[in-house]
Amino acid sequence: MAFMDSFAARLRALQIENMFENDFFLTWDKTDDEIAAVFTVADALRALRENGISPRIFDSGLGISIFRDNSTRTRFSFASACNLLGLTPQDLDEGKSQIAHGETVRETANMVSFMADVIGIRDDMYIGKGHTYQKAVSDAVREGHRDGVLEQAPTLVNLQCDIDHPTQCLADMLHILHVFGGPEQVKGKKIAMTWAYSPSYGKPLSVPQGVVGLMTRFGMDVVLAHPNGYEIMPEVEEVAQKNARIGGGSFRKVETMEEAFDGADIVYPKSWAPFAAMERRTQLYGQGDFDGIAALEKELLAQNARHQDWTCSEAMMRRTRDGKALYLHCLPADITGVSCAAGEVDASVFDRYRTQLYSQASYKPYIIAAMIFLAKRKDPAQTLLALEERGRKRTL
Amino acid sequence: MAFMDSFAARLRALQIENMFENDFFLTWDKTDDEIAAVFTVADALRALRENGISPRIFDSGLGISIFRDNSTRTRFSFASACNLLGLTPQDLDEGKSQIAHGETVRETANMVSFMADVIGIRDDMYIGKGHTYQKAVSDAVREGHRDGVLEQAPTLVNLQCDIDHPTQCLADMLHILHVFGGPEQVKGKKIAMTWAYSPSYGKPLSVPQGVVGLMTRFGMDVVLAHPNGYEIMPEVEEVAQKNARIGGGSFRKVETMEEAFDGADIVYPKSWAPFAAMERRTQLYGQGDFDGIAALEKELLAQNARHQDWTCSEAMMRRTRDGKALYLHCLPADITGVSCAAGEVDASVFDRYRTQLYSQASYKPYIIAAMIFLAKRKDPAQTLLALEERGRKRTL
Amino acid sequence: MAFMDSFAARLRALQIENMFENDFFLTWDKTDDEIAAVFTVADALRALRENGISPRIFDSGLGISIFRDNSTRTRFSFASACNLLGLTPQDLDEGKSQIAHGETVRETANMVSFMADVIGIRDDMYIGKGHTYQKAVSDAVREGHRDGVLEQAPTLVNLQCDIDHPTQCLADMLHILHVFGGPEQVKGKKIAMTWAYSPSYGKPLSVPQGVVGLMTRFGMDVVLAHPNGYEIMPEVEEVAQKNARIGGGSFRKVETMEEAFDGADIVYPKSWAPFAAMERRTQLYGQGDFDGIAALEKELLAQNARHQDWTCSEAMMRRTRDGKALYLHCLPADITGVSCAAGEVDASVFDRYRTQLYSQASYKPYIIAAMIFLAKRKDPAQTLLALEERGRKRTL
Repeated sequence: MAFMDSFAARLRALQIENMFENDFFLTWDKTDDEIAAVFTVADALRALRENGISPRIFDSGLGISIFRDNSTRTRFSFASACNLLGLTPQDLDEGKSQIAHGETVRETANMVSFMADVIGIRDDMYIGKGHTYQKAVSDAVREGHRDGVLEQAPTLVNLQCDIDHPTQCLADMLHILHVFGGPEQVKGKKIAMTWAYSPSYGKPLSVPQGVVGLMTRFGMDVVLAHPNGYEIMPEVEEVAQKNARIGGGSFRKVETMEEAFDGADIVYPKSWAPFAAMERRTQLYGQGDFDGIAALEKELLAQNARHQDWTCSEAMMRRTRDGKALYLHCLPADITGVSCAAGEVDASVFDRYRTQLYSQASYKPYIIAAMIFLAKRKDPAQTLLALEERGRKRTL
Repeated sequence: MAFMDSFAARLRALQIENMFENDFFLTWDKTDDEIAAVFTVADALRALRENGISPRIFDSGLGISIFRDNSTRTRFSFASACNLLGLTPQDLDEGKSQIAHGETVRETANMVSFMADVIGIRDDMYIGKGHTYQKAVSDAVREGHRDGVLEQAPTLVNLQCDIDHPTQCLADMLHILHVFGGPEQVKGKKIAMTWAYSPSYGKPLSVPQGVVGLMTRFGMDVVLAHPNGYEIMPEVEEVAQKNARIGGGSFRKVETMEEAFDGADIVYPKSWAPFAAMERRTQLYGQGDFDGIAALEKELLAQNARHQDWTCSEAMMRRTRDGKALYLHCLPADITGVSCAAGEVDASVFDRYRTQLYSQASYKPYIIAAMIFLAKRKDPAQTLLALEERGRKRTL
Repeated sequence: MAFMDSFAARLRALQIENMFENDFFLTWDKTDDEIAAVFTVADALRALRENGISPRIFDSGLGISIFRDNSTRTRFSFASACNLLGLTPQDLDEGKSQIAHGETVRETANMVSFMADVIGIRDDMYIGKGHTYQKAVSDAVREGHRDGVLEQAPTLVNLQCDIDHPTQCLADMLHILHVFGGPEQVKGKKIAMTWAYSPSYGKPLSVPQGVVGLMTRFGMDVVLAHPNGYEIMPEVEEVAQKNARIGGGSFRKVETMEEAFDGADIVYPKSWAPFAAMERRTQLYGQGDFDGIAALEKELLAQNARHQDWTCSEAMMRRTRDGKALYLHCLPADITGVSCAAGEVDASVFDRYRTQLYSQASYKPYIIAAMIFLAKRKDPAQTLLALEERGRKRTL
């Protein structure tokens, strides 16, 4: 009975006043307590649902999503989180041109938000744009709320930007915590965030950036490896350095995948595009230089092809601790011999970890729901207890 | 306590029996009492929501939308209204060709309506088509209900047709009533509905038509101004004349924007396409003459360009009462120097009124919800009281 | 009072344990008791709704649809069924290429299903593909559930595959049962499932196959007729033969529409593509031979055109029992002189049966809801009683 008690107690031990009516842009905007609160509420909502109890806190209200890049998984994670809490998902399918300049962002944000409790945005395509756009939307609806235009200020949830991918990386971390047994157990563990070869082009940097920015907070030995030319944003490396210092762990860069994998407890091999190339692409796009973009794409694919040895093969996995590191991926992976001739990971490695990879992904809807929950409840611990006491069954 | 009492009392003083199980096509189909009922229920639903009380009257059911023209704002207003009342919005994305002839309209209307409580339609592209199509859909589902095919007859809500834009104009009017303090306060006020220059082509006539058709009922001095050749539908001018006569106000046409703005209490400067040109366009479209349409578009843009002086500049605003008329727009506006080189309104004017413009728009979801509510409740006053008594919180 | 009693009693007399947590692929996978249970629950849910009582059994949860072919009617039927039971419909709009190979099917199916209670799939375009794909999705989510990835295993509902169209054919049959008065009354009745001319190309075989596979179970005299070259799948003919034998009816093939219509109690004249041609088309598609597909289409249209006399004319209808056979169609029909110059049915015949055709279609949302209900409730009879006892009004 009263299985929410422990979650509520954990939550009450945390300083999380600032989460109420706030947004979620970057994990490093948040304190350790706030990150812990997201995990606690995610686990609590999951426990409620798995015990057949509805965690609906909304009788009505909209959850708006804006996807400026294709998405199936994140779209469904967001829709699932909204549905779990009682919000109706509603997708804003704006052509990029229509909401390009600032005036229109402000106006559109307000016009769609009269009944919105949350706005989730994915905008990861252009360096320097995604995060800025999300901030602009948040500013607009907060201003609208202050001015009495909006009854409520919808909370903004970053579903991936050019800098961070907090819902993914928090889901990854919660998965790690559950696999290893908790925060004490992950201290000192070595995690290898490495580039891996893919025959496709222009994958966002938000995952590697998000991983080194977040995982360094848990006292882990975070190692980043990539071929020359695939640097991530320097600002994020600084965040990782600082977080490692504070969190009692470390952040290092190494030159080879082998070095990163040696003795690793966790590996996260994944392709991404060079930051500098993505900046060039953004400029070319701004100039409408589509020939230039096509030439750049060709150049990048050729550059990728020089690094086909960066792959999570069985041989590479044998270098990890007891050959049994936890393999992570945000999915979908480019699997050698399955989805492409040569890719990020051997089919046999992927197969061995499939169930765990799916479990990793299963945390994302709950992470998103937790972000919304914490932004909307002044006393979230009390609400968890109230949900259990209400005891409304999810199905009759 | 019992803050619904006054709304219920106001509603009970009105003759609104005909609204039950009826549609909403044109404001001039409705009596003054019926218009007043829409305002009263819109305000009541808003009061409930702003007091944290859910106005859900549906446990389940669909709200179907058909947009035969692009729409973001109206789409979200409709989705918001449905959500507020407990209906799930469901968009019917039919290619025009598929539902072009009468037989298919009847069939499709019934096929999608087995669980539908409302159908909202926007069809403003072709003169003589939109209203006709909406009537055909309504006839089809009423026949289906009579024949026992549909358990319930969905109510039809006109989300914009070739003749009127009732959800917009009622939202505009409710905004005016709130700004000025009520029906007594708007009597005798001068409202200038004027054409304004825009570099874009083919904006619907439904807003100016809806405004002169509706605002003339409130004892206002309604002035319409546009360049030669931008006439609205003569039938609607007749409606405006008649409504002015009955309502104790006036309806006049003047030749210049200046004359319209002089001493005005409210101004609504907005671009629209010439009615006659839109008729020609409809004919060309019917003949499949796409070269003719392209030629017409060029001609119309050139015609527009001769009237760039029709713009809501600061100088123009100074002509209004104390230089401080209430500025209205249905949004998005073509703002000079912001969204175009020269447009409908100066950026400084727009900026000064932005918050009020957003407030104006904020009434639309409640107006739509009120239309649905009044069509679905035999004793809407009783339902408002019941909603307050039930006191179900919108969020836990 | 207690009008659910009779439905519950009927249900309790049936052996339906295997329906719980099971899928619905083909009607001939199911026992007679299971088919009877679908009808009983469909009627019960309809009775609840028509008495103003909500049959919602879900507080939250998603109903995912995947349409690999255009659909308006089935899309709304599925959305209606989900809404009726309390699930939020969510459409997965995957490009075919993205979920083409097996690995991706498994992954995508799990990634979208974390909160999904049902997945409805329409995939009828290629022989040998649709049913296989549906099975793959079901296998994937069941594995995900077994592995602890998914809290619940969503039930799979076949919204049309290359073999069967169970939601359509069960709706058709329930309509027949209601028109004729029950299972005893349909015994010995002659039903003519016949090909009919259409100027369009490549209509699926799932309806004629579904009809002969299902209707033969009810002791009816099922007659199939089509021009030479329009054979249905031989496996399904075998199913029909077997079902007729067990069910005490008959299954025969005749050479002409006239012979099929002679003395028929029910007629179902409808165009479909030749099975063999559809197989060739699937091969051409697999080879990427689009010229070949275009040539095949031309050939098939020419082949169709040789059989314009296969049409449900007034003369043809006069051959049926008293000239008054029940006319069925899954809609939309190709109506001579209305939607095409020459088609499946005379306008006067169609007009006379329109209301009945719409009623026929009205069963589909309830059939789908019944399939979900039976897969999700261990004791569905008890749930029906509980729904009536709860007595929650659908509208306040």
